[in-house]
Amino acid sequence: MHSFQDLSKIFAQTFNVKHFPDVPASLYQPNEYFLAMGGKRIRPVMCLMGNELFGDIIADAYDVATAIELFHNFSLVHDDIMDNAPLRRGMQTMHEKYNMSTALLAGDVMLVVAYDYINRINTRYISSILRLFNQTAREVCEGQQLDMDYEALDTIDLSSYLHMITLKTSVLIAGGLQMGAILGGAGEANARAMNLGGYSEPSAYAPAPKRPIRTACRRAACPPL
Amino acid sequence: MHSFQDLSKIFAQTFNVKHFPDVPASLYQPNEYFLAMGGKRIRPVMCLMGNELFGDIIADAYDVATAIELFHNFSLVHDDIMDNAPLRRGMQTMHEKYNMSTALLAGDVMLVVAYDYINRINTRYISSILRLFNQTAREVCEGQQLDMDYEALDTIDLSSYLHMITLKTSVLIAGGLQMGAILGGAGEANARAMNLGGYSEPSAYAPAPKRPIRTACRRAACPPL
Repeated sequence: MHSFQDLSKIFAQTFNVKHFPDVPASLYQPNEYFLAMGGKRIRPVMCLMGNELFGDIIADAYDVATAIELFHNFSLVHDDIMDNAPLRRGMQTMHEKYNMSTALLAGDVMLVVAYDYINRINTRYISSILRLFNQTAREVCEGQQLDMDYEALDTIDLSSYLHMITLKTSVLIAGGLQMGAILGGAGEANARAMNLGGYSEPSAYAPAPKRPIRTACRRAACPPL
Repeated sequence: MHSFQDLSKIFAQTFNVKHFPDVPASLYQPNEYFLAMGGKRIRPVMCLMGNELFGDIIADAYDVATAIELFHNFSLVHDDIMDNAPLRRGMQTMHEKYNMSTALLAGDVMLVVAYDYINRINTRYISSILRLFNQTAREVCEGQQLDMDYEALDTIDLSSYLHMITLKTSVLIAGGLQMGAILGGAGEANARAMNLGGYSEPSAYAPAPKRPIRTACRRAACPPL
């Protein structure tokens, strides 16, 4: 078994390449800028780990891990627009460096390219991976919507907060584990168990809350991943 | 062979259903609002026609046609944000009726649900349909980016204009024809020919230009589809 650090380095070798064509540069260069900011690559490494728990890591797992990381970055680009955030990882967010329309569209095309990577895998896995990827993607969107809905409230209760951050953050980690397990040859029950493991402590994935929450909820929060 | 009008009615029976869950309503209801505006459904009908040219229309063609129409509507929701458009089909655009963040996110999830429909088709078609769908989606994004880039120019020449509207508008019509042909059992050359047919007169799909273009270009333009 590889360590997280080992897999993170191995994944970086695969991921740190150009993912987009050269033209139009006004669309694709902003995405290269954003991806070059780096990141801890936790979600794709979860996919590789999920695979390795059940067998040697196969090439398809790197494609799915890449799709997961591109999806994550797409969601960050769009979240930054919605949050009107000026900085991401100490650098200008995409809409700040370019403009809102470019960030919106570049995010869109990053999501499409994520699906391109899923389409590279062995056809016998495509349907199950695509189903899980789509479900996870929908849930991440739902989490972001709830996060915005909660901004209109003075306080939120613990269960609502955990529900929101579970959708917004932990489902993609859990989904990555499950997708990796499927590719590693896990049976349905084991792959599902991997997913449940990813969910089991949503507070571990809780980003720092943006607004006042009740005391019980504050205790559950920890620094953002 | 069915007429366009017949297929449009048949498609409407399939398409005019709920495509999204009930909750969170703040995310999904805006999409139901937008889809209820209607439209000519040209792109999905092209898919059904492409199928019927080579064989009886199969159930998978309705799923791909639905994915195409959802993709088209996703692109309209996001284009309306970028264009700051107040109206669409005589009704408030999504960002006007709700807000920009909701329209951004609801558009995102509409695209994800489009991919859900692609995942419903027979697995033997998924890879080829997904490849073509993704390529088309990227090109539509490229066309929108070029459209925005051209806004900074005083004039554009005919070939640049046709290139932009080919990407922005005709590739999805051409792609729909080709996807339908694949599902109808067309060989690769015939399916490709369907695509080229869709491209052959891009000016037929030209939306009304938003800014001054040279005279030769104006002649190529016609009312928006």
